[in-house]
Amino acid sequence: MRLSQFHLHTEKETPAEAEIASHRLMLKAGMLRRLAAGLYTWSPLGLRVLRKVEAIVREEMDRAGALELLMPTIQPKELWEETGRWQKFGGQLLKIRDRKDAEYCYAPTAEEVITDFARNELASYKQLPLNFYQVQTKFRDEIRPRFGVMRAREFLMKDAYSFDIDAAGMQRSYEAMHAAYVRIFTRLGLRFRAVQADSGAIGGDASQEFHVLADSGEDAIAFSTGSDYAANIEAAQAAQPGPRPAAAEELRKVDTPTQKTCADVAALMGIDLSRTAKSIALVGADADGNDQFVLALVRGDHDANEIKLAKVEGLAGYRMATEAEILAHLGSEPGFLGPVAPKQPIRVLADREVAAMADFVVGANEPGFHLAGVNWGRDLPEPDHVADIRDVVEGDRAADGGELRIVRGIEVGHVFQLGSKYAEAMGCTVLDEQGKPRVLQMGCYGIGISRIVAAAIEQNFDANGILWPDAMAPWRVAVCVINPKRDDAVSAAAEALYRELSDAGIETVLDDRGLRPGQMFADIELIGIPHRVVVSGRGLEAGTFEYRARNAEESENLDRETLLARLRQPKS
Amino acid sequence: MRLSQFHLHTEKETPAEAEIASHRLMLKAGMLRRLAAGLYTWSPLGLRVLRKVEAIVREEMDRAGALELLMPTIQPKELWEETGRWQKFGGQLLKIRDRKDAEYCYAPTAEEVITDFARNELASYKQLPLNFYQVQTKFRDEIRPRFGVMRAREFLMKDAYSFDIDAAGMQRSYEAMHAAYVRIFTRLGLRFRAVQADSGAIGGDASQEFHVLADSGEDAIAFSTGSDYAANIEAAQAAQPGPRPAAAEELRKVDTPTQKTCADVAALMGIDLSRTAKSIALVGADADGNDQFVLALVRGDHDANEIKLAKVEGLAGYRMATEAEILAHLGSEPGFLGPVAPKQPIRVLADREVAAMADFVVGANEPGFHLAGVNWGRDLPEPDHVADIRDVVEGDRAADGGELRIVRGIEVGHVFQLGSKYAEAMGCTVLDEQGKPRVLQMGCYGIGISRIVAAAIEQNFDANGILWPDAMAPWRVAVCVINPKRDDAVSAAAEALYRELSDAGIETVLDDRGLRPGQMFADIELIGIPHRVVVSGRGLEAGTFEYRARNAEESENLDRETLLARLRQPKS
Repeated sequence: MRLSQFHLHTEKETPAEAEIASHRLMLKAGMLRRLAAGLYTWSPLGLRVLRKVEAIVREEMDRAGALELLMPTIQPKELWEETGRWQKFGGQLLKIRDRKDAEYCYAPTAEEVITDFARNELASYKQLPLNFYQVQTKFRDEIRPRFGVMRAREFLMKDAYSFDIDAAGMQRSYEAMHAAYVRIFTRLGLRFRAVQADSGAIGGDASQEFHVLADSGEDAIAFSTGSDYAANIEAAQAAQPGPRPAAAEELRKVDTPTQKTCADVAALMGIDLSRTAKSIALVGADADGNDQFVLALVRGDHDANEIKLAKVEGLAGYRMATEAEILAHLGSEPGFLGPVAPKQPIRVLADREVAAMADFVVGANEPGFHLAGVNWGRDLPEPDHVADIRDVVEGDRAADGGELRIVRGIEVGHVFQLGSKYAEAMGCTVLDEQGKPRVLQMGCYGIGISRIVAAAIEQNFDANGILWPDAMAPWRVAVCVINPKRDDAVSAAAEALYRELSDAGIETVLDDRGLRPGQMFADIELIGIPHRVVVSGRGLEAGTFEYRARNAEESENLDRETLLARLRQPKS
Repeated sequence: MRLSQFHLHTEKETPAEAEIASHRLMLKAGMLRRLAAGLYTWSPLGLRVLRKVEAIVREEMDRAGALELLMPTIQPKELWEETGRWQKFGGQLLKIRDRKDAEYCYAPTAEEVITDFARNELASYKQLPLNFYQVQTKFRDEIRPRFGVMRAREFLMKDAYSFDIDAAGMQRSYEAMHAAYVRIFTRLGLRFRAVQADSGAIGGDASQEFHVLADSGEDAIAFSTGSDYAANIEAAQAAQPGPRPAAAEELRKVDTPTQKTCADVAALMGIDLSRTAKSIALVGADADGNDQFVLALVRGDHDANEIKLAKVEGLAGYRMATEAEILAHLGSEPGFLGPVAPKQPIRVLADREVAAMADFVVGANEPGFHLAGVNWGRDLPEPDHVADIRDVVEGDRAADGGELRIVRGIEVGHVFQLGSKYAEAMGCTVLDEQGKPRVLQMGCYGIGISRIVAAAIEQNFDANGILWPDAMAPWRVAVCVINPKRDDAVSAAAEALYRELSDAGIETVLDDRGLRPGQMFADIELIGIPHRVVVSGRGLEAGTFEYRARNAEESENLDRETLLARLRQPKS
């Protein structure tokens, strides 16, 4: 491609609307243009990158034996009602009425439609296993669309759905997709991790997320130095704590007139924060569905994890207790709460770490006082529940003996074992070897294609712009011509090099726009071309081209042969 | 691809819902599955064909220098209001409200969004010419979706938009697109015609449609034997008629007690239908916008053309006159109407052919009577308007001296010269060489990618199924194995041939499903694979493969070399 024939529209100003690097750089590089909230036009430059990602995803899906099809973006309400998701999916589901007042949605995902397809097309176990995928536009009516294509409303997604006769088959299909995802992100040249995840609204039995690692990532990921264990912070678990030490201190009341947080109490007492436990007053439901007051305890240096809390029996739809409820059950205002001697009987939920503590500090249920030297079984009953209800933290011991580290990531893929959830609800069965109807076992596998583009930038940028991995770059090589209009020999040499590289299958763009070198180089750096070659009169005299990798400090003067050899080998 | 690893789902029954061959065959072949009215899932088989078309369209657009981008499917109301089309587009525009009650539509086309993109991105004539295109899902809320993907609501379309500084530039961009379309349909292997067309709702200065020729086509196309003139029936013109002959007969009243049509009157009188003129009572508007009664006359053997009528001054929004209006102006009931001696003064609009008639027959404005020997200027005034207001018919003389023939076609592409229509309304200007703002000249160019698939079938099918042109076939060659499970040598030979063909770049599917030959051949014919090779024990013994082209009467036994040579040359 000759840039003079292309439409490149870079911006010098930093767009005010952009909060994160990828959004800012995509706008500055002219990859995107905003049409409305969460809706973006991909310019020719941006689309080149998007298509690179799409092509690699498609190749690896095909290689894994998945079959591409294409489902409509508009889906009828009736199917979503079969699974109950018409109501349950929430405000992200964009609902639409057509001219005949029939109801539809713009697909945010396609479990219902593919399960309908499968129940109509599949009759026998002999047709299995099958894995259908599509690359299709999706829409989620985000309440606060932002960060450009990172959290757009309309986006491009690859979604795949596997169908197997049994759980073992589903497991194999899931593993094949997991392996394909590893190949995809490896080929894209991104640093990533596959992490154990909570299944969330899609539901099902097991799931893993694929995260592109970047400091700006919205998600925290814990991984172990001892194995390849990695998990979303929502799902990560530290090792089981050691046995509880014997009680060594007497229970005593401590004067904490203004100290309402564990940190303040620990500072006042001159003890480590990890010796304190904070009390969180929740209201769940008992077996009959009535409100049940639960006091959850986590160590003062830990944070409770909402998702883990919600998995404890009786806390599925929990809420925070009101001040009135707290006063009624504990007899104290917040800031001085604790599990010892409540006003009314309560249920106590201790994090595993808290259950293993001795001689710890909690609120005294009396304004201005805490209790120290608290011990389970002596000063209060053993906890009603013990569970892992906290976020892991950097340095936690992992179950594999290693240490947990926390990094930040951007979720770009998710693989789920759905089991029979959708197939059961929609009656998707085939006849098995015995001729009996059998509900299919499904998996589903998503990749956010447009989001990968933004995530790659979050991982790879500097002050001058984007640093694309070779596989994602709009072009791998830019040939920059100095003074093309003034110097015919330079123009001809640049043209010859451009043709030679292109003929060798090296995707090259020729910057023949005739801009001043500074302006030209700034553009080429901003849009992130991995390899830059400058053709100038001085170089021609010396018989060299000036080569610089986008991520290199210095440029080098290379003769033609060395340059070609360098460019033929993708450098990542 | 091995069919055992693919998902092929053919149906023996003819689907009741399908009215036309392409719809029926796409359902029987399992290319499509209906999701809801006008919404279809493309199965893996169907998508292979769709992607073939898409790839050829993309290659030729790129070759023509157009730049691909991607606009959202969801577009904000505000832009559509700038051109007035939010109201004017009509019921096909699917309007949507998001969770914040903001209004959007699902794009049926993208003139507004691309013009908004251009006015933001383009500042100087130096950036021009530019032609942006996308391959994107569109939605038109058809009141009666039918014929499968021929008239679906959601469909895949390539839409392109050119921007030029002046009309001459627009003309060049238009011609480049016209040439690209000719290459596209030629490469697809379809019989097609580019025809002059009415611009319709998109508007603008000039337009041509591309039609795939097929007997079942919804559109009639006139073409001349004397040149490459071809036009949609809505736009086609015959040659100017010759001079009016002198009057030879006297005006006389003919008794036509029950003859209310020209055909009945001509039969009664024993004259040719072309000697009669039929009267069509219309109501248009005069210069002040008041109702104006107009009597339009076309020859008895011709049909009036609504679009041509609406182009006559005063008839832009015409309607048929009511019986009361007819009685008031002509003093007669329908069936006996004519332009002679109306009860009130009327405007008479004569088709060019009628204006050139002498001694013709019309209604007498008196129940039970017609007038014969009618002559302009003698028995009634010369017509107020003379215009071409009729459909051309087979055998009409063309302006180029040839004869007009009528064929049927399916519109699959449309190129428009829009001029400044959208750019003016939306303020899309750039600075010209003099530094003055100049409104851009646009063209727009659509191709219905999903519709092409159906149109190709309408043109190419027989009693056994589809006959794909090589370029559109899901696979060019099918290697069918007889008794693969019983005969290892046959299996091995088929596998070897499959690999050899695939390695030679010949897209091949191996039918290794182990079906009975009849069932296997029926499937392969139904899904339209152009070249079939059968590998059998008998053939192996003879050292030959049985080859049959889908469109051939007979199969041939060919040795390996001959077979490979045959398959290497695409036969169309």
